[in-house]
Amino acid sequence: MSRLDASLLRPLAQFRGLSEEDLRFVIAGASTRRLVKGTTLFEEGGEAVDFFLVLDGRLKVVKITSDGDQVLIRFVVAGEICGMAAAIGRTTYPATALAASECLILSWPSALWPGLVEKVPALSAGAMRALGQRLEEAHTRITELSTEEVQRRLAHALTRLAGQAGRKVDQGILIDFAITRQELAEMIGTTLHTVSRIMSGWEARRLLEGDRQHLLMRDPHKLLMIAEGNASGD
Amino acid sequence: MSRLDASLLRPLAQFRGLSEEDLRFVIAGASTRRLVKGTTLFEEGGEAVDFFLVLDGRLKVVKITSDGDQVLIRFVVAGEICGMAAAIGRTTYPATALAASECLILSWPSALWPGLVEKVPALSAGAMRALGQRLEEAHTRITELSTEEVQRRLAHALTRLAGQAGRKVDQGILIDFAITRQELAEMIGTTLHTVSRIMSGWEARRLLEGDRQHLLMRDPHKLLMIAEGNASGD
Repeated sequence: MSRLDASLLRPLAQFRGLSEEDLRFVIAGASTRRLVKGTTLFEEGGEAVDFFLVLDGRLKVVKITSDGDQVLIRFVVAGEICGMAAAIGRTTYPATALAASECLILSWPSALWPGLVEKVPALSAGAMRALGQRLEEAHTRITELSTEEVQRRLAHALTRLAGQAGRKVDQGILIDFAITRQELAEMIGTTLHTVSRIMSGWEARRLLEGDRQHLLMRDPHKLLMIAEGNASGD
Repeated sequence: MSRLDASLLRPLAQFRGLSEEDLRFVIAGASTRRLVKGTTLFEEGGEAVDFFLVLDGRLKVVKITSDGDQVLIRFVVAGEICGMAAAIGRTTYPATALAASECLILSWPSALWPGLVEKVPALSAGAMRALGQRLEEAHTRITELSTEEVQRRLAHALTRLAGQAGRKVDQGILIDFAITRQELAEMIGTTLHTVSRIMSGWEARRLLEGDRQHLLMRDPHKLLMIAEGNASGD
């Protein structure tokens, strides 16, 4: 068993309001793991042996279709839990998670979940809030996929990333998030070609600029207007 | 306060394994309400005063976009809970719910939720399972919307309805579910025109037949093959 300190958990929203004793009880069952970028943490359909919390770095959760297409479901960032199959009454993982950057994660055996929530009911409330948020995000994406043309979906995806991982700099909002155009295409259900074409147009209009390591939204307001259908994406 | 009997809850999966005392505690806070078809139960953004359980009938949960397009998120059938804003830490409803048929529902004030789960922790586990299932359904729809052409999405939607509300009859699987072509279009993110064109083709091929009140899948296996991309939808 690991010798981890409860202070690891104290700053995280998931554990807000827990007593020192509760935090020590929760951390006692955890182990740490470091993942190299690209490593698979768990696979869709695999037995849900553990559940996880990202301490540092970023996971990418994907679903693979029967045709072999990969759809990006979401990123899991520091402070978020994932692989909660046990909490939702499943025995297998419903999707695949890969390290999108080098990651430091905590893991707990799924079998500990019932005992953890019995002793610390706030964990269950926290997990439910996380599920609720993800469900809402998913419904928003369904709505966008169903009704919006691709420029608006891309502008929405970028705006969400800016909210999740952006910081204000002199030239606009900087997303320090190595996201590829292929990943953006998987997020919004279109092709790499289409994403490249739209983003090249936006770069030419100086709405944004990007390379492999970062993305700078030079005109976040215009992108938001495109997302909301109040400005042309072309 | 209502004088409802705990036996109303006993057959429902949400309450499986609850003691008679727990059932009585849960029902004590509930009221019944009958909804005429088309009535709005709650509206997106409205204060989440109550949460609900459908005893009979069927609700339709929709999101309305800023352009006024309506996207069907899901049907809520007998035995299912909805409007659980309180459980996921929200104060407003994240979507709009309408009676898709005449409905009999139970409602509880949202303010009772914390006390209910404290006394009956199994309620929280049940709500979490329900959220997990919905999240999985949502991810499946995102995957379909992102990667499948419209025939496959329609075949998938029909196959899911058959699983949810179909029964085997001599001629195939009968879906006793008044679902309109417009609703199918909202479920899969396409136009009424496209759904009508595809379904007319399938009727001509004798894969299905339908009117306003029911839908008969005459060749469920072929529809499943179309859904899985192993048969042509044209």
